[in-house]
Amino acid sequence: MKYSEMDKQALESEKQKCVERLRKYSKDDISLDLSRGKPSKEQLELSMKMLDVLDHHSLLDSESGQDCRNYGGLDGIPEAKRLLAHMMGTHSVNTIIGGNSSLTIMYQLISHGMTDGICGSTPWQEVKGRKFLCPVPGYDRHFAITEHFGFELVPVPMNSDGPDMDVVEKLVSSDDKIKGIWCVPKYENPTGIVYSADVVRRFAALKPAAEDFRIFWDNAYCVHNFDGKCAEIPDIISECDKAGNSDLVYEFCSTSKITFPGSGISAVASSPANLIDIRAFLKFATIGPDKINQLRHARFFRNSAGLRAHMKKHAAIMKPKFDAMYKVLNEELDGLGIAEWTVAKGGYFASYDTLPGCARAVVEMAAEHGVKFTPAGSTYPHGNDPQDSNIRLAPSFATVDEIESAVTVLALCTKIVSIDKLLK
Amino acid sequence: MKYSEMDKQALESEKQKCVERLRKYSKDDISLDLSRGKPSKEQLELSMKMLDVLDHHSLLDSESGQDCRNYGGLDGIPEAKRLLAHMMGTHSVNTIIGGNSSLTIMYQLISHGMTDGICGSTPWQEVKGRKFLCPVPGYDRHFAITEHFGFELVPVPMNSDGPDMDVVEKLVSSDDKIKGIWCVPKYENPTGIVYSADVVRRFAALKPAAEDFRIFWDNAYCVHNFDGKCAEIPDIISECDKAGNSDLVYEFCSTSKITFPGSGISAVASSPANLIDIRAFLKFATIGPDKINQLRHARFFRNSAGLRAHMKKHAAIMKPKFDAMYKVLNEELDGLGIAEWTVAKGGYFASYDTLPGCARAVVEMAAEHGVKFTPAGSTYPHGNDPQDSNIRLAPSFATVDEIESAVTVLALCTKIVSIDKLLK
Repeated sequence: MKYSEMDKQALESEKQKCVERLRKYSKDDISLDLSRGKPSKEQLELSMKMLDVLDHHSLLDSESGQDCRNYGGLDGIPEAKRLLAHMMGTHSVNTIIGGNSSLTIMYQLISHGMTDGICGSTPWQEVKGRKFLCPVPGYDRHFAITEHFGFELVPVPMNSDGPDMDVVEKLVSSDDKIKGIWCVPKYENPTGIVYSADVVRRFAALKPAAEDFRIFWDNAYCVHNFDGKCAEIPDIISECDKAGNSDLVYEFCSTSKITFPGSGISAVASSPANLIDIRAFLKFATIGPDKINQLRHARFFRNSAGLRAHMKKHAAIMKPKFDAMYKVLNEELDGLGIAEWTVAKGGYFASYDTLPGCARAVVEMAAEHGVKFTPAGSTYPHGNDPQDSNIRLAPSFATVDEIESAVTVLALCTKIVSIDKLLK
Repeated sequence: MKYSEMDKQALESEKQKCVERLRKYSKDDISLDLSRGKPSKEQLELSMKMLDVLDHHSLLDSESGQDCRNYGGLDGIPEAKRLLAHMMGTHSVNTIIGGNSSLTIMYQLISHGMTDGICGSTPWQEVKGRKFLCPVPGYDRHFAITEHFGFELVPVPMNSDGPDMDVVEKLVSSDDKIKGIWCVPKYENPTGIVYSADVVRRFAALKPAAEDFRIFWDNAYCVHNFDGKCAEIPDIISECDKAGNSDLVYEFCSTSKITFPGSGISAVASSPANLIDIRAFLKFATIGPDKINQLRHARFFRNSAGLRAHMKKHAAIMKPKFDAMYKVLNEELDGLGIAEWTVAKGGYFASYDTLPGCARAVVEMAAEHGVKFTPAGSTYPHGNDPQDSNIRLAPSFATVDEIESAVTVLALCTKIVSIDKLLK
């Protein structure tokens, strides 16, 4: 029975039960953290053998013949380009390998737009009122980069198959101050949503008012499925080509959640013109990415099949955690009309919505009982969720037992806060 | 006998002999490269055991207890901070670890000045006619960064103990559009000059007109001596403190020429206020540097003594190369009055000066005989050496035999070009 259909007495009795049950969870005894998309120790163990791939006996030449131990090369070695290009579903020729973080490449590109201008356009620093589209809920670190560089962040609602393309098309085609959009096309952070083929093609066919508008296509979870079958979406780069929009997109990926976060390799893929524009500033910004670490990754995985096999091991660890989370959510909250959540089939997150005006209070109450969630609002530009309803769930780092406890606390807090709201 | 004191006949005869000798060197037979400051393969071998330091049995926790395999930490791990701080002669608390290249940190800092402003000052992008001081001869990649960001590059002459401080003091104190200066204080690129204590202290005591003026103190060769005794210079950071100028300097170093170029670790050291300013943009620009590679370096060297012992092995490889170079230069050119060169006691380079107007012709003629030098002019801002006399010598990558041949070609070309000039 929905809470909204219950009378005052029933609600008060229900609240009493929840308060009673919540007493079991005290921050003196428990300290659980579902706030960060960190791989668990068990996942990190999966890549430990990568540390054995190179030793002092190894020949550290790339397949190109280049000595990976020395200076040289802005693009990365061919075997690393191939590995990450194929992971994204594109070609080596479209790909440049970066350092240990794709976020750094994104930051560099926005910074490049600010000071140099994209492909010779007016530097964004000179564009007063510059804007960036932010599908919501989304990834706080994306939003933060553009906030740092003084963009007005324009929220765009998410549907179940991706951003609302009617809104995106209308905004992008009518306002030349809009310079880009943040996208996580597969297993989005935090919704877990996979963009539909139609959404991908509508992105590729955008007709931006600004010549220097770019889609920032962060394919961070492109191979991170839970059930052995990876969602397939059209390759954005070839779709842009087909639509006569070759220069519209920058695509990103990394191995941060495949091998070791912070010690992985990253990549950007784009059109020939964009890659020329990127190399033109990269040659000043770096002596080139870490080729030994590229070699280590390329030899560890060997090829896409090796990578897929590795991701199955991740999935075997991740799936039970998400299952445990959904089980508690369903048992505790199904049919009450006070919370909704997305069911992710990959990635690191799910998105959870309370009744409007409850998210902050729920997160605060959970913290009082020893359970930490991502701060409410952080999935929105400037940390401001106008509905105050969204909470990001990140169960990867915790154990199944911890997740059961943490999500039980989440559910109980949601119930109590919702009842208080309904009784007001 | 000096060429300038020889008569026409003697010069023509001398030229004839040189042409004769140069015939032995044909680009069909030889291909020598003294253009790049690359470690040789023999040097790279010195660090191969670093690849064995971590394997799948290793505990990858930092001494702080942090799991280096996972996300977290903007500053780097304590053992890496200590290693690089002590290498520079400063303290961990002043130090942030970067990625695989100190050049990237320098680029990021200039870029930060451009878009954000240094410590809250006006963004440099808004400063028309912004300038940067470039001691000459100097490092082309330094100059290139500031050229890329639209600075006017102002050359400053080098004395034998560092930049001409009379010039530096006068310029810096009188012009608030001057926002920084590039310095390589030890074994400078390309002169090999070590700054004197007096020069270091005069730098620390500068009274810049611009509040956001910064010294870019690239201590790239701080431990790279040839003869077991490293030149000691005052610690710029504590000197700035003493002078009441704490925020005046950014100091940089890396292991690029200690372990593997491109796969090393780097650092920036500065004042508390500057480090706060740096972290304030770094938190958007990166998920943090590669902690596993930091751990690999820290465990390989253990401490400063381990690092010094390692540098002695580099010196044993480098010294014979520089000795071979000087031997040929002395034998071929001493007393002729047509060339001068610096005698480096560390670093990767020496600086070679022809008669004015000869450097380009010498480099071109050498190339025709199979020997490649750094393009003449590249040690000056915008690649423009107004005297056309400076050539950078980089003997690290070649073998002793190759160096003897290459420097012989250099000497012969210098003689021929000089005679042609004198006979004109």
